[in-house]
Amino acid sequence: MVANLQVQLAKQRDGMPDAADFRVTEAPLPRPNPGELLVRSVYLSLDPYVRKAIRGDHPGHTKLVDGDVIYGRSVCRVVRSHHDDYQAGDYLVAETGWQQHAAIGVDKVVQRIDPAAGPLSSAIGALGMPGLTAWGSVERLGKPSIGETLVVSAAAGPVGGCVGQLAKLRGARVVGIAGSREKCDLVTKTYGFDACVNYKTDGWEEALTAACPGGVDIYHDNVGGPLLNAMAKHLSLYARVVMCGRPADYHSKDFQGVGLGPFIGRRAKMFGLVVYDYEPDFDHYLKLASGWLREGRLKVKEDRVEGLQNAPAHFLKLMRGENVGKAIVAVGPEKA
Amino acid sequence: MVANLQVQLAKQRDGMPDAADFRVTEAPLPRPNPGELLVRSVYLSLDPYVRKAIRGDHPGHTKLVDGDVIYGRSVCRVVRSHHDDYQAGDYLVAETGWQQHAAIGVDKVVQRIDPAAGPLSSAIGALGMPGLTAWGSVERLGKPSIGETLVVSAAAGPVGGCVGQLAKLRGARVVGIAGSREKCDLVTKTYGFDACVNYKTDGWEEALTAACPGGVDIYHDNVGGPLLNAMAKHLSLYARVVMCGRPADYHSKDFQGVGLGPFIGRRAKMFGLVVYDYEPDFDHYLKLASGWLREGRLKVKEDRVEGLQNAPAHFLKLMRGENVGKAIVAVGPEKA
Repeated sequence: MVANLQVQLAKQRDGMPDAADFRVTEAPLPRPNPGELLVRSVYLSLDPYVRKAIRGDHPGHTKLVDGDVIYGRSVCRVVRSHHDDYQAGDYLVAETGWQQHAAIGVDKVVQRIDPAAGPLSSAIGALGMPGLTAWGSVERLGKPSIGETLVVSAAAGPVGGCVGQLAKLRGARVVGIAGSREKCDLVTKTYGFDACVNYKTDGWEEALTAACPGGVDIYHDNVGGPLLNAMAKHLSLYARVVMCGRPADYHSKDFQGVGLGPFIGRRAKMFGLVVYDYEPDFDHYLKLASGWLREGRLKVKEDRVEGLQNAPAHFLKLMRGENVGKAIVAVGPEKA
Repeated sequence: MVANLQVQLAKQRDGMPDAADFRVTEAPLPRPNPGELLVRSVYLSLDPYVRKAIRGDHPGHTKLVDGDVIYGRSVCRVVRSHHDDYQAGDYLVAETGWQQHAAIGVDKVVQRIDPAAGPLSSAIGALGMPGLTAWGSVERLGKPSIGETLVVSAAAGPVGGCVGQLAKLRGARVVGIAGSREKCDLVTKTYGFDACVNYKTDGWEEALTAACPGGVDIYHDNVGGPLLNAMAKHLSLYARVVMCGRPADYHSKDFQGVGLGPFIGRRAKMFGLVVYDYEPDFDHYLKLASGWLREGRLKVKEDRVEGLQNAPAHFLKLMRGENVGKAIVAVGPEKA
């Protein structure tokens, strides 16, 4: 019998996660019930929301108890299907948790993957929800015109990186905000942004002003809170602000209210973005984006680690903001 | 020599204004310098922003010192003109302060008044900046469709009352939020809103939900802070929020940050409104609104007191929220 490596919650507690929160252990291979699928994880996506989901502080996630498998999505392959819509060999993005194998109901399937569309792992990045989020922001809400200046925070991340690159495709000037010199290098040299400002350095606001001499026409916010407040004064008149921070971030104990007065003064238009709105556009987006990937017009950067046992350390690196690019764990081979 | 009754700041201090802050006194008739106008106040507008302006806490207003005339706009008539663009007998809205006569530079002129457009006092109400603000909100930002539900706070006030009535003209359902039963009666019986909720009563949010069974499609916010936060959960998906609270309100010691997460969850579109943007549209608006006034399709309600000496008490009533309708002081006769 094949053992199933998984990462469990060792102990539920408050505060920032550390290594002691996680337990890597072997469990029996799960058995799918009627209507369910047995899937094998190929690439596990590591995402900041998981910290809140573990605590029950994120929409759609109940608080974990000790011994539960950590929440997570992965690119996975169907091993055995008890559902007519799926068959062995299909590639999916699904809510598998942090484990090698999972028995899941079809309600846990996020999307099907067309392996011809691009690298499999991009289904949790540029060809998946992060990319679709960026597409909704740029093409449906912010709509930068040629020569307008778009600024995006968390610019080295999968959403931010795509937002900037799509805005470049529309002819905008694009300036990123990121948290390290290494991230800023990625943003300018790989993603091709016009500039990137490290918000952890003194004088970053002056640097932003210098990088946006005509003001900020579109600001895509991935962060909320203090950074959103700080951005108000950089906006040009009638600027558009796409608010893409996760709602839970604003509900938490870390709640930071936003002072809207300066936004009113700039006559800002502020849009709340929820990626689910764009699911009907996914096939359209995927066709475009897989072309851009193939042609090298859309660049992705992964911060990849091999082996599920390394997921906790890689997640903690993400939580410290030390990842450069989309954080993923290669859990198993793509084929076989 | 004609004495000039004026209301001065008795003593600069912090906190809510009271009667001891004001001194009603006689001064000599002011003499206009070259290029200036001598104007006589007819109707003085009382507005909440004056409280902050006195303290130097409102854009464009320096902190008053003891003995300064209180800030204020009025409908006034030119007595003597030393400027080619104006002549004796012209009616203006101008920054005169709280006094019978003022010698003002032409930079203090807010607008000219066409006396044929409607009642003179409406130039500081439905036919002035409050009306234009409402027009910008309804026709340029919120744009309610037939049958959509618009909610407006401070609904008994000059902006709120016009917002709701213009939205009714566009075929929307309109629900007001106001702070007393008397105000709610004005809103429904005179302004013709479909409903009005008294936010100072227990269960007002349930009443609002009942009055908006399909959710709130457009919310015009005149208040900011806690009420704006509270409204998020009442919004329908893709609701529009017009933010019309004065920026200074958000900058003050009373600063109340707004939690944007729930607005993102509703995919709200939020617009900052500044009335100056619509000045180029003023003649267009005035023509429309004067017709509506004449035809009785746009109703106004004034809370009027006679005599400048009564301005402080009337202002304090406004500050307590006890005014019903636009607060004005009849300072002198319209003609002669």
